[in-house]
Amino acid sequence: MPNLHAAPRFIRACHRQTVDRIPVWFMRQAGRYMKEYRELRKKYSILQLAKTPELACQVTLQPIRAMPIDAAIIFADILLPIEPMGARLCFAPGPVIDNPVRTSRDVDRLKEFDVKDGLGFVLKAITLARRELGATPLIGFAGAPFTLASYLIEGGHSDHFLKTKAFMLEQPKAWDKLMRKVRGITVDYLKAQVEAGAQAVQLFDSWVGCLSSDQYRRFVLPHSRFVLSALKRSGAPVIHFGTGTSGFLEDFASAGGDVVGVDWRIDLDRAWGRIGPRAIQGNLDPTLLFASRSVLKGAVHDILRRSRGRRGFIFNLGHGILPQTPVENVRSVVGWVHAWSSN
Amino acid sequence: MPNLHAAPRFIRACHRQTVDRIPVWFMRQAGRYMKEYRELRKKYSILQLAKTPELACQVTLQPIRAMPIDAAIIFADILLPIEPMGARLCFAPGPVIDNPVRTSRDVDRLKEFDVKDGLGFVLKAITLARRELGATPLIGFAGAPFTLASYLIEGGHSDHFLKTKAFMLEQPKAWDKLMRKVRGITVDYLKAQVEAGAQAVQLFDSWVGCLSSDQYRRFVLPHSRFVLSALKRSGAPVIHFGTGTSGFLEDFASAGGDVVGVDWRIDLDRAWGRIGPRAIQGNLDPTLLFASRSVLKGAVHDILRRSRGRRGFIFNLGHGILPQTPVENVRSVVGWVHAWSSN
Repeated sequence: MPNLHAAPRFIRACHRQTVDRIPVWFMRQAGRYMKEYRELRKKYSILQLAKTPELACQVTLQPIRAMPIDAAIIFADILLPIEPMGARLCFAPGPVIDNPVRTSRDVDRLKEFDVKDGLGFVLKAITLARRELGATPLIGFAGAPFTLASYLIEGGHSDHFLKTKAFMLEQPKAWDKLMRKVRGITVDYLKAQVEAGAQAVQLFDSWVGCLSSDQYRRFVLPHSRFVLSALKRSGAPVIHFGTGTSGFLEDFASAGGDVVGVDWRIDLDRAWGRIGPRAIQGNLDPTLLFASRSVLKGAVHDILRRSRGRRGFIFNLGHGILPQTPVENVRSVVGWVHAWSSN
Repeated sequence: MPNLHAAPRFIRACHRQTVDRIPVWFMRQAGRYMKEYRELRKKYSILQLAKTPELACQVTLQPIRAMPIDAAIIFADILLPIEPMGARLCFAPGPVIDNPVRTSRDVDRLKEFDVKDGLGFVLKAITLARRELGATPLIGFAGAPFTLASYLIEGGHSDHFLKTKAFMLEQPKAWDKLMRKVRGITVDYLKAQVEAGAQAVQLFDSWVGCLSSDQYRRFVLPHSRFVLSALKRSGAPVIHFGTGTSGFLEDFASAGGDVVGVDWRIDLDRAWGRIGPRAIQGNLDPTLLFASRSVLKGAVHDILRRSRGRRGFIFNLGHGILPQTPVENVRSVVGWVHAWSSN
């Protein structure tokens, strides 16, 4: 473990060190709920923003300049790596891939690439943002192998993940080959982000909650574990996030990572009871940011109360900020978390 | 408890009595995946089918005639009670309510009605179906107060249940009034179904998985408990079903009911470990019915293995059958469950 004496509270919390205040940041904190972001989106598409390091850096900094958030997260999209793999991706407005993966041969055609070439713009944005951020740590991120594979196979949004599950269950060898390709790129990508300046990384397994425990253990866990274990030597703490994981939280946590992300469907203290002494990030229901101040206050208070007596808590939402969220409420949560957890 | 010596295995399993074979039925077993149903739907809308007792009876019997399922469930829709309450409901193709509930006054305007008048057609269909079914028990059902209230407030499908949660959190008195109205009708409706001939009833809290544990305990649990407790004296066993409940399964189970329904996201044995000696219904992933026979066999086998040594198991899906499901696979599951659990 690095010398953490002078480390920011977010990094200290990842390592379950004592903190002066509970750190707080928000998934999708750089996004549509901010006026500054909407202004930029009038001129640029999501992909243009993500692929132009100066713009991605600017968006990354927007929430940090607006409120005293404890960590920045680089502006990017979890689907960026699938383009250099050979997927034709557009946003219409949700992601659409017009050459989805359906066969073993499709998997073979997916390219393994040098992330410095294929995703150099993200690395450059990280270096730029890190330079601007000063004491605020910067988080890099990637989609977890399952979530990326599900997009590659479904070709876009899915209600039931029928095609993904059919592929996984009926073509287990092709699935394994696909997951190995994706996990290899994911490891390279996250390591390169750390080298470029990211002080922590998060692995997003956003759709893993569609699976049964058995499916998770057999087809997903080994690949997530591979990524999380490869990142151990990077020196940067790793957050492993998923939603809908309450049914198999023990398995999910067993994949590794310094911090386990939990959604809002489970009480924080119950989650801790189930996974033991690990750092946890979560778990405010994102819809609560639309609530009145008194209701929102109550919800934040309840989470802080349930975190008491535990080391290694990072306050966050249970999933990303929703587009219409009032900025004032986000700002208030930052203030309350800091004030109420102050030593 | 009634004398169960001669009771069908489904009823015995509800009461955690020993069974000769594990009983099996499927949520939405009467529906679009069956050719016979699609034929009828060419001529009639869902509401026409549900409101014509002879047709609803016919649809109820279709899967029972096609395979040796252990229980029939009356063909109806959980939203039927909201029409006589005053909601203007249509299917386009998902449910749309063009006068949603948004204020305390809207709640006041919702009518309490005599279920024998407002929903007499369902009761009549139950009596007709019961007469045709012979030894196969008939299940009645209703939407749980939360799920019905969420439809009344959202006015249709919702991704994040923002309006429902805002109503619940910001207008707790109006919410309480709404839930009391809905739960009163639900109790009357389920009791009337038992009187009309239903030998068991199921309370569907299909969307409750959008809530946090805290929201569930404060705003939903007392009302579900009221319904489940009122049904105790009906003589018919009660199944309490929800999806996405793994985060607060202990709370969900504490609402009552003879049988707890669980989705596929949790291992059956883990669910049992968490709720103790209760009957459980579940928990096959509905997408597995699209799988090859060997994969499907493996999944059914795994569930049966995890049910071993427990009394009170009813094999079912973790949610409703999906429209394109191959009938042959449904039939195979019935056969395997019976063959592999035979004493």
